[in-house]
Amino acid sequence: MGGKVCAIIGFGPGLGTAYAEVFRDAGYSLGLLSRSGADLGGEEETNPSVRAFKCDAGNPDSLKDALASVQSELGPIDVVIYNADLAQFGSIEDVSEVHFEQSWRVGALGLFATAKLLGPQMSERGSGVIIISGATAALRGNVWTTAFAPSKSAQRTLANSLAKQLGPKGIHVAYLVIDGVIDTEDTRTNFAPNEPDEFFIKPAQIAETALMLARQDKSAWTFELDIRPFGEKW
Amino acid sequence: MGGKVCAIIGFGPGLGTAYAEVFRDAGYSLGLLSRSGADLGGEEETNPSVRAFKCDAGNPDSLKDALASVQSELGPIDVVIYNADLAQFGSIEDVSEVHFEQSWRVGALGLFATAKLLGPQMSERGSGVIIISGATAALRGNVWTTAFAPSKSAQRTLANSLAKQLGPKGIHVAYLVIDGVIDTEDTRTNFAPNEPDEFFIKPAQIAETALMLARQDKSAWTFELDIRPFGEKW
Amino acid sequence: MGGKVCAIIGFGPGLGTAYAEVFRDAGYSLGLLSRSGADLGGEEETNPSVRAFKCDAGNPDSLKDALASVQSELGPIDVVIYNADLAQFGSIEDVSEVHFEQSWRVGALGLFATAKLLGPQMSERGSGVIIISGATAALRGNVWTTAFAPSKSAQRTLANSLAKQLGPKGIHVAYLVIDGVIDTEDTRTNFAPNEPDEFFIKPAQIAETALMLARQDKSAWTFELDIRPFGEKW
Amino acid sequence: MGGKVCAIIGFGPGLGTAYAEVFRDAGYSLGLLSRSGADLGGEEETNPSVRAFKCDAGNPDSLKDALASVQSELGPIDVVIYNADLAQFGSIEDVSEVHFEQSWRVGALGLFATAKLLGPQMSERGSGVIIISGATAALRGNVWTTAFAPSKSAQRTLANSLAKQLGPKGIHVAYLVIDGVIDTEDTRTNFAPNEPDEFFIKPAQIAETALMLARQDKSAWTFELDIRPFGEKW
Repeated sequence: MGGKVCAIIGFGPGLGTAYAEVFRDAGYSLGLLSRSGADLGGEEETNPSVRAFKCDAGNPDSLKDALASVQSELGPIDVVIYNADLAQFGSIEDVSEVHFEQSWRVGALGLFATAKLLGPQMSERGSGVIIISGATAALRGNVWTTAFAPSKSAQRTLANSLAKQLGPKGIHVAYLVIDGVIDTEDTRTNFAPNEPDEFFIKPAQIAETALMLARQDKSAWTFELDIRPFGEKW
Repeated sequence: MGGKVCAIIGFGPGLGTAYAEVFRDAGYSLGLLSRSGADLGGEEETNPSVRAFKCDAGNPDSLKDALASVQSELGPIDVVIYNADLAQFGSIEDVSEVHFEQSWRVGALGLFATAKLLGPQMSERGSGVIIISGATAALRGNVWTTAFAPSKSAQRTLANSLAKQLGPKGIHVAYLVIDGVIDTEDTRTNFAPNEPDEFFIKPAQIAETALMLARQDKSAWTFELDIRPFGEKW
Repeated sequence: MGGKVCAIIGFGPGLGTAYAEVFRDAGYSLGLLSRSGADLGGEEETNPSVRAFKCDAGNPDSLKDALASVQSELGPIDVVIYNADLAQFGSIEDVSEVHFEQSWRVGALGLFATAKLLGPQMSERGSGVIIISGATAALRGNVWTTAFAPSKSAQRTLANSLAKQLGPKGIHVAYLVIDGVIDTEDTRTNFAPNEPDEFFIKPAQIAETALMLARQDKSAWTFELDIRPFGEKW
Repeated sequence: MGGKVCAIIGFGPGLGTAYAEVFRDAGYSLGLLSRSGADLGGEEETNPSVRAFKCDAGNPDSLKDALASVQSELGPIDVVIYNADLAQFGSIEDVSEVHFEQSWRVGALGLFATAKLLGPQMSERGSGVIIISGATAALRGNVWTTAFAPSKSAQRTLANSLAKQLGPKGIHVAYLVIDGVIDTEDTRTNFAPNEPDEFFIKPAQIAETALMLARQDKSAWTFELDIRPFGEKW
């Protein structure tokens, strides 16, 4: 392929697609990992630098297999974007043990498996970027985040631990604290059907910030930043 | 029994024993849960208000069985102290997937199972206390906390979520950020054999602060506090 | 006097009075500092261990003079409670430069002057307690805290710096993050006239927690804790 | 002029110069404010879109006069970068009351005066960017930051308050938590003479991130981000 390779774990409509488009337009080959195996609007058929793979981010073996496939088809992964997330909400009475575990698997264990596989490879090459789609729930719990907050906070401190371990080896780990509702067909229809445009975060803008992070010089890396729409109450 | 009941999950030498002694001396009956089923220096034989139970805090069924036994033998649990913790340290290369999961099971899933069982019961009675032995790793990751930080931060934001859900129902959830090395035979021998007395946190003093939290008036509850020895660099 | 001495900077109705009563009942002599020079319901006339002094906490010379008077009349100060606060709220358009400065003077400069005077004395004796009435605004800014948040956050990080400097010398510095409305005649009448009892933090309960902090063993000191009523949304 | 206008408060060698060069190269006219009145290597003489002004950032009148001069000579200010800072370090015994106050004046009062002047004007135009050069000391105090931490934390929570007030009016306020030593002639010579290149943050890279922030779409603004060199221990 020649170009750099970006793997997106948790590809899908909305933010996953925005990451894909922004990194493709920046010249990256794309490995798209999702439960459905969806690709970027069928682009896989015409564009050899876009490849889609089925995997379950909450299952380390499945995830590592898919990442290995990305590498065998496109080459070493330069940038991995960890975008998998169950985003299930509920009180302690609503959330079952299975949900609690599954949230953690997709949010934290999958990132661990990713780093376990790619960390040593990136360390050997002396470069690499790991970007995580995070949330404010990573910083504090709330009434409805019985499962979500523990999953996201585990993800964030794991990312923090990875940043400190892998940074000196040339690997940039960055955590996006996305604070607001992303503009997708789903959120527009189900979650916030009556909100104006300015209520939403445009996914392409999150992806642009991620691209900026991927391009930061190693003398001045950002580990963590927040992103929210200008009118958000916070 | 008549008196109030305190269950200590993750009983053992050091902090577990200190909690037991301080709450016993304050008049609580004790349910001591540990993997070994140890009791307080054999006190179980002579003191009917001390009961020890074998359980694995990382296994929700085992944990819920043991808590049910505490309740059937001693009565409803007024205070539960979640002190279970694997405290395994290592880099991403050292930590296996199994360790990563086990850390989370004992640190976070066990607290979830505890709250799932006791939360509704305490809510019904309109009172109860849930105290968690936490750590600074709950707030940030570090080079050696690949497994520990995600486990503790999941525990902390779960506690935070529980505090917000259960507080209005009269249940006080509190998180102790223990920042320093606790004075135990193990830490004195293996972890910090050459440190002076003042390097260590005395476990009885942590337990005294926990007792104070258990006694706070509901108009002025503390969710989170840090604890460290006076000479600690932080 | 014989007993220990507690100086309360920013004495007044509500929390100041609660601190005074709780520490008096615990056996402390009291030095009460306020702009009005008020004492504890006239107790000064009959109780030689209660002394009131006029001072402006935002004026270092005035404050240091009053603290020196406390010491000459009651003896060395063992515990100082920094409770001075303007608590002025407004947007950038509402807050004048004078207000902005005055908030900082009373919130942060006064604490600096207190520590500048008492820190070396307490260090020499190898013991002492400095407790600060803080607020959530110390951690983040909000729409109406243009003056208040900068004042409280300066106060908090100063306290944090003092804790790290003075802790190893035997001085316990602690910061109370009071999150909620304190039950006083003023807040009941003006700020929240229609709220139920349980909306408010009882000042005596904050003072009890402060007393507990003053009694913590130096092997297990708390720097920071939050306090809020059980029904508070946070 | 035609182009956009960027005012840099606290212009000087190192980071101030880097901001100037990066924003100049991005097409901005520059208003450079400093105590010495220095300009960008004499560029003022040949480049009509670079103007230098003498002012004391800790003196609101002086600062507001200089900002007014920028506007009368270059036009309305689109981006203001608050880079003024005394960066004085010392323990409570080292720091005088005058230093403590001066640190706050330059760190926090100057930002207040800037927002007081420019906030309403930017609000009226519905756009504007306020970027602040911050530090980790904004988040916590340390032994040597008796004056620095209170100044930076006041600055940060003020910025946070401004972000929440002014964001909905179209003004982007952003805070850079710069965690590390910036590569300047001064730090190379005096502060860290024996450190390798990779120890330092390149000022141009901080400025590039600031430019990225100034360009973020309002649907996805960042308030806060950290910046440190890849090898930094944190």
